[in-house]
Amino acid sequence: MRIIGIDPGLAIVGYGVLEYKAGRFTTLAYGSITTPAHTEIPDRLQSIYHQLDDLIKMYRPEDIAVEELFFHNNQKTVISVAEARGVILLCAKMNGLNIYEYTPLQVKQAVVGYGRAEKKQVISMVTSLLNLKEPPKPDDTADALAIAVCRAHSGGSQIEQYLKRMSR
Amino acid sequence: MRIIGIDPGLAIVGYGVLEYKAGRFTTLAYGSITTPAHTEIPDRLQSIYHQLDDLIKMYRPEDIAVEELFFHNNQKTVISVAEARGVILLCAKMNGLNIYEYTPLQVKQAVVGYGRAEKKQVISMVTSLLNLKEPPKPDDTADALAIAVCRAHSGGSQIEQYLKRMSR
Repeated sequence: MRIIGIDPGLAIVGYGVLEYKAGRFTTLAYGSITTPAHTEIPDRLQSIYHQLDDLIKMYRPEDIAVEELFFHNNQKTVISVAEARGVILLCAKMNGLNIYEYTPLQVKQAVVGYGRAEKKQVISMVTSLLNLKEPPKPDDTADALAIAVCRAHSGGSQIEQYLKRMSR
Repeated sequence: MRIIGIDPGLAIVGYGVLEYKAGRFTTLAYGSITTPAHTEIPDRLQSIYHQLDDLIKMYRPEDIAVEELFFHNNQKTVISVAEARGVILLCAKMNGLNIYEYTPLQVKQAVVGYGRAEKKQVISMVTSLLNLKEPPKPDDTADALAIAVCRAHSGGSQIEQYLKRMSR
């Protein structure tokens, strides 16, 4: 399966594209979509949409895994991050991808094996698991790769995802 | 000028389309875009995008006025409302509309002349100002019309809007 992992944001959207086959990962691409500060929010949202659309059309993933956002994350930015996240989900839907959402706890559990792992541990595990020469920068990129790994490792839990979505 | 006012939401997006010329309003359309509960968020976001896109292409407004969202609005829904709001702003941008944002206080000030006016007063003023036979339902629709009226009445304050956006 080919997966794009996304760490949502307005200024920085981390992404990572992985191929997962017979228990082995191939890292196809990773990096970040960025939008300039001091430009209007709608322009930044449009830029995120177009950049993500280009990535999806280039790498053709079947699945997208997006980190969930919580009210208590960051009071100052939560609304603009959620606006960007809405645009990301729309872009995924418009491209016909299977959409999965994971909490930070699920991601840490899947990657480090411990839900309360520190950010450093996640970055280090992602770097080693994917045989990267150095830790991916910025952290949003490492997070996006971790989310994609989480999706690969929880491939069988579609029923769980389904029940979760239905309960909203 | 032709304006579409929007009261953002995930389950209900209120809209109202007004023509404002020489101090007089013509009400072209109003109602609500709705999405069914118990369906996946990305599907609902896509449905909002398509329905709004259809409305914009049908009525061809130049301006869109969208209510601002605040962190303290409603803890349970603020993230999904913000996700929908992101999709609404994207749709407006994709259609080349001029985008304006107003706080509930600005809207009440513009419509009732008093920033702390009650919802009932706003609905009653909108109904009378636009010569509607009865108060628009649901409230989201009345709010959307009020936001469009606010945009019409603050036509001259583009510099203010510009400064506000630049300060983000």
